[in-house]
Amino acid sequence: MLGFFTLVPICAVIALGFALFLTLKILKADEGNEKMVEIAQAVREGAAAYLKRQYKVSGIFFLVVFCLLMLLAFQGYLVIFVPFAFLTGGLFSALAGFCGMKIATLSSARTANACQYSLNQGLRLAFSSGSVMGFIVVGLGLLDLSFWFCSLDWYYSHHLVPDGMDKITATTSTMLTFGMGASFQALFARVGGGIFTKAADVGADLVGKVEAGIPEDDPRNPAVIADNVGDNVGDVAGMGADLYESYVGSIVATAALGVAAGLGVNGVTVPMMMAGVGIIASIIGMNFVSTKEDATQKALLSALRKGIFIASGVVVAAAYVIIRVLLGPEYVGIAWAVITGLAAGILIGLCTEYYTSAHYKPTQHIADTALTGPATLIIEGLSVGMQSTAFPMVIIALATIAAFGLAGGFENFSLGLYGIGIAAVGMLSTLGITLATDAYGPVADNAGGNAEMAGLDPKVRERTDALDSLGNTTAATGKGFAIGSAALTALALIAAFKEKVVLEGAVMDLDLMDPLVLVGLFVGAMMPYLFSSLTMSAVGRAGSEVVVEVRRQFKEIAGIMEGTAKPDYARCVDIVTTSALKEMRVPAVIAIVTPVAIGFLFGINSVGGLLIGATASGFLLAVMMANSGGAWDNAKKYIEEGNHGGKGSNAHKAGVVGDTVGDPFKDTSGPSINILIKLMSMVSIVFAAIIVDKSLF
Amino acid sequence: MLGFFTLVPICAVIALGFALFLTLKILKADEGNEKMVEIAQAVREGAAAYLKRQYKVSGIFFLVVFCLLMLLAFQGYLVIFVPFAFLTGGLFSALAGFCGMKIATLSSARTANACQYSLNQGLRLAFSSGSVMGFIVVGLGLLDLSFWFCSLDWYYSHHLVPDGMDKITATTSTMLTFGMGASFQALFARVGGGIFTKAADVGADLVGKVEAGIPEDDPRNPAVIADNVGDNVGDVAGMGADLYESYVGSIVATAALGVAAGLGVNGVTVPMMMAGVGIIASIIGMNFVSTKEDATQKALLSALRKGIFIASGVVVAAAYVIIRVLLGPEYVGIAWAVITGLAAGILIGLCTEYYTSAHYKPTQHIADTALTGPATLIIEGLSVGMQSTAFPMVIIALATIAAFGLAGGFENFSLGLYGIGIAAVGMLSTLGITLATDAYGPVADNAGGNAEMAGLDPKVRERTDALDSLGNTTAATGKGFAIGSAALTALALIAAFKEKVVLEGAVMDLDLMDPLVLVGLFVGAMMPYLFSSLTMSAVGRAGSEVVVEVRRQFKEIAGIMEGTAKPDYARCVDIVTTSALKEMRVPAVIAIVTPVAIGFLFGINSVGGLLIGATASGFLLAVMMANSGGAWDNAKKYIEEGNHGGKGSNAHKAGVVGDTVGDPFKDTSGPSINILIKLMSMVSIVFAAIIVDKSLF
Repeated sequence: MLGFFTLVPICAVIALGFALFLTLKILKADEGNEKMVEIAQAVREGAAAYLKRQYKVSGIFFLVVFCLLMLLAFQGYLVIFVPFAFLTGGLFSALAGFCGMKIATLSSARTANACQYSLNQGLRLAFSSGSVMGFIVVGLGLLDLSFWFCSLDWYYSHHLVPDGMDKITATTSTMLTFGMGASFQALFARVGGGIFTKAADVGADLVGKVEAGIPEDDPRNPAVIADNVGDNVGDVAGMGADLYESYVGSIVATAALGVAAGLGVNGVTVPMMMAGVGIIASIIGMNFVSTKEDATQKALLSALRKGIFIASGVVVAAAYVIIRVLLGPEYVGIAWAVITGLAAGILIGLCTEYYTSAHYKPTQHIADTALTGPATLIIEGLSVGMQSTAFPMVIIALATIAAFGLAGGFENFSLGLYGIGIAAVGMLSTLGITLATDAYGPVADNAGGNAEMAGLDPKVRERTDALDSLGNTTAATGKGFAIGSAALTALALIAAFKEKVVLEGAVMDLDLMDPLVLVGLFVGAMMPYLFSSLTMSAVGRAGSEVVVEVRRQFKEIAGIMEGTAKPDYARCVDIVTTSALKEMRVPAVIAIVTPVAIGFLFGINSVGGLLIGATASGFLLAVMMANSGGAWDNAKKYIEEGNHGGKGSNAHKAGVVGDTVGDPFKDTSGPSINILIKLMSMVSIVFAAIIVDKSLF
Repeated sequence: MLGFFTLVPICAVIALGFALFLTLKILKADEGNEKMVEIAQAVREGAAAYLKRQYKVSGIFFLVVFCLLMLLAFQGYLVIFVPFAFLTGGLFSALAGFCGMKIATLSSARTANACQYSLNQGLRLAFSSGSVMGFIVVGLGLLDLSFWFCSLDWYYSHHLVPDGMDKITATTSTMLTFGMGASFQALFARVGGGIFTKAADVGADLVGKVEAGIPEDDPRNPAVIADNVGDNVGDVAGMGADLYESYVGSIVATAALGVAAGLGVNGVTVPMMMAGVGIIASIIGMNFVSTKEDATQKALLSALRKGIFIASGVVVAAAYVIIRVLLGPEYVGIAWAVITGLAAGILIGLCTEYYTSAHYKPTQHIADTALTGPATLIIEGLSVGMQSTAFPMVIIALATIAAFGLAGGFENFSLGLYGIGIAAVGMLSTLGITLATDAYGPVADNAGGNAEMAGLDPKVRERTDALDSLGNTTAATGKGFAIGSAALTALALIAAFKEKVVLEGAVMDLDLMDPLVLVGLFVGAMMPYLFSSLTMSAVGRAGSEVVVEVRRQFKEIAGIMEGTAKPDYARCVDIVTTSALKEMRVPAVIAIVTPVAIGFLFGINSVGGLLIGATASGFLLAVMMANSGGAWDNAKKYIEEGNHGGKGSNAHKAGVVGDTVGDPFKDTSGPSINILIKLMSMVSIVFAAIIVDKSLF
């Protein structure tokens, strides 16, 4: 039954091979002088140490949940493969994050060194590093899925399938539960990493920049290494794990929806094939990203965009062929759903850019309000963030209905749901290249830190700043993409959840006038608020621990400020590590317990309401936080460029306040919501059987 | 068929008589010296001038909508009474707001004067003024409803009822559309008033306190009268119109649900009777609010609470009797729904107090973060606001399900919806006394302004500050109550909307997996964000106009700062008036057009999704904004009391930033959301027939 499917693992291997090829190319580059190597080494060690400890903590959580799943499996609520697939999902996700982080920390000094020669060489190196991350994520994700698909196919060909299912239903409904491992790992990576990076950043800034008056990334600041480590564990490893989860989740959900729509094995092969083709398309797109040696930032950005557009075009063409060949010409409408997903991803990115880039009015207007102090700047920033939710929400809404309708949902409901899933897969199919543009930012950021600390020529810092600024734009776009894909993935997962409930022999009726559904919806809509509150105050608490420690070092270690004594960097890394790992526990437990508790108390329909409420409300809050944060950041940079009095003016001070408020917004709480909505859906799917069996209502 | 119903207009008249009695008592009090009278006169004139212009603008809107409704009536989409009832609803609401504002502006100087003698006399006067507002709102609301109920009953007794309806159905389904007039008027009062009050406040503070360094309410500040006018038009007239709308809306919705549940005319009489009994209960409760001459603030607060608890007790007892007598002993479960509503209102109030009062940890912790500057204070304030949504949301969710279940909804679905409506009516039945505790705050605030400007003994200002501080607590509780009741009212309206659609011969199926419902839900959830963004930036824009004008006056009018020349107060009032009236137009149009547009494009089910999405998301955002704002305000006050360095310290400066950000949060955008969710429901009900007929899906 595999047929065309065999192409899928081949594409996965190609992705990993391409990542290896890029890695070897990066490693050939020179890391610069001794000082630069030393600094890079410190960041590398800090990041590795953090991840090691994070994996230990998450390992314990994984063990507990594994035992719980085994228990459920023995009681017949899950097939026996689920606990093991849960482990491989987590393992592969962790591996992707680890590799991405590793290559990022290997590239920062090299990027700084390349910037000694030219801006363009620096860009190429940083972008290659981001690409490695992108291709490792898609390669490992698709490999894990291929492995389980083949194994289950073989197993159910030789053994009895569960009651009332055929072979393919048994396979996809088992695979559906696999995403939970990736979700779970993403939670720790995103939430823990997010708290780490912003606690270090806020702490370093508050004492260093504000109290001691030393510049950013100054080697005299004891928290500076922690800050640089944070970029890697938060923005690289966290972002990678987040999108790994969306990638895997959208594919398994769509596969299950394909079987439910009666498309059989081909309905399963299509999303996987599209993911595979997306890898090839991304590699093709990458080859079109070429710039002249003296290219402007705008030219660089449009070169990047060209790559993404070409990759998208290839995917669209391939989707048409794949769907026509595998499903037949009467289903080509589904190919339009792919376009819907891709277009939605690109449009949300453009909206994000409009609201967060200093080239446009909203951010410039925020900068204007800095003239009347921090209060008006905060008000305007929040207002811009709230306003910026309108278009992305409308885009997601229209994309959902378009994907549903184009796939034929108004004639055949199940087919429409499959269309929504396919739209999510389409949006994520070019992840290899889109993630590259995103993961490149922190590398550039770290390169700047390295140049500053190593005392390189100011010209180098200028070049890394230019790269960093471009990285800010791509990072903002990337965040819009991450939450957009998370929302579509969550919708696909919720639809798949409904199918899972039907397979458990129950009926799911999500009538909004049913107060049980309403209760779920209300609690679900509240969850992102609670979650954000927890992660924001975690940053505050961990940040103040850093403040206390930095103050102590300034006071007790004589000669730091004169540059004659070295601060104790490791102590700061250790503090943020400990705090981040401690603070991520409560949000983790809440995200897992809530859907199960709501299910036991108010029934399976209430869980459906919960998931949709969380998706709608979470999407809005995440977009608002990401865009407010991005806009404040760029408004500050806009002032620093000399507007409204430039650096050191009162307007600049107001801008710094906005940027500091925006830090946990855009890098901790906002992105963590992506995980929350996907993880709750995954948990609901895995626990569907026992909820149906044991709930009070 | 009227029977017991005749008691209802009698209760309404009693409420109005009681308000008149209190007014005469207030007018007997002395207004103080010449200077005090002069200041009060200026505020009075400013407020009256604003309201007059607001009524002119809203009059034009009313005329346009009236014509539109007439058109719909002639085409058979509405009964001919609706356009006229729309007008009376608006007229009565405006009248209530006007009277409340009038009495508040008549009481401020009298309260300041009473404070020259004792704290307690001041409290009594301010509280009486608040009570007038409370009883006028319930009296006029119930009178309007009684008038229309009797008229329609008489009309349908002597004329043909519309096809497929009996007399009572025709009456209630017509009355259901009446709330739109009140909703519409509330929009202008809340949004316009909210923008007015905070633009004046922010503008006055930014130039006066921050730039010129003069204290709050200093007569040298040209915007000081505008600021005091704002308290009256925003906090008094706006709050009154908001709750008038909830009061009327919950009663008509419940009446319609009662008929749909097959309870006949008694199902209609019950909510009206309960509202009537609530008036008597409020008057009884008021008589228990007595304090000793030397009472502490805590004693004052508990005296107030005692009054509310006693009123609630009376309502519960009466509800049991009314329901047992009118509906029969098999329906006493519905009386439990009343208790659910009352309890939810009180619990939400307590939650609000916990999160916003400086006596508890959250606000104290916000004050602590002021030590590390405005950024950490803003982060912590937002975090507290987000966290504070959790309990109120769970309370509303549980109250909904409890009211549904206790009324018998799990056996008879329609009866459960009636229970939800009755819970809303129960929560609002004691509005006479709860609104009194709320509307008293601005009077105390204005009394303080009057005392400051008239240069009275600092002891008087201390006493008015004590009253104001108590007022802040009751105002925060009142805001929680307003949004809680708005949410329950909106739910009742949505349920009634569904019944209305059924009467139009259509089916409404709010299946959450239907992408059309999802689109509505998504757009609905986004609406409060868009609305808040608009109102917040409106405050910013109008505030900066005030800043420019105040700066101009300081520069051009010689002798202001020395107190030898009088600033041009009227100019500032005029500027905020013009801005507020201009800025409220876009939000108004959006709130009205969106449900109709969604209906035409995506059908009636999509409108249902829209309303529920807006209710869930709006409730969360409103609670968050109100509580963040309240907590920042009190954190600043806590610092001013001498904590963390007291007035003038860096912590205090950070506190002022938080308070300024909180101003539009708690007094403009947050409360405006209440109106948005109710108005959209009302608009949907009125336009239900034409949407069913003309929609694309």
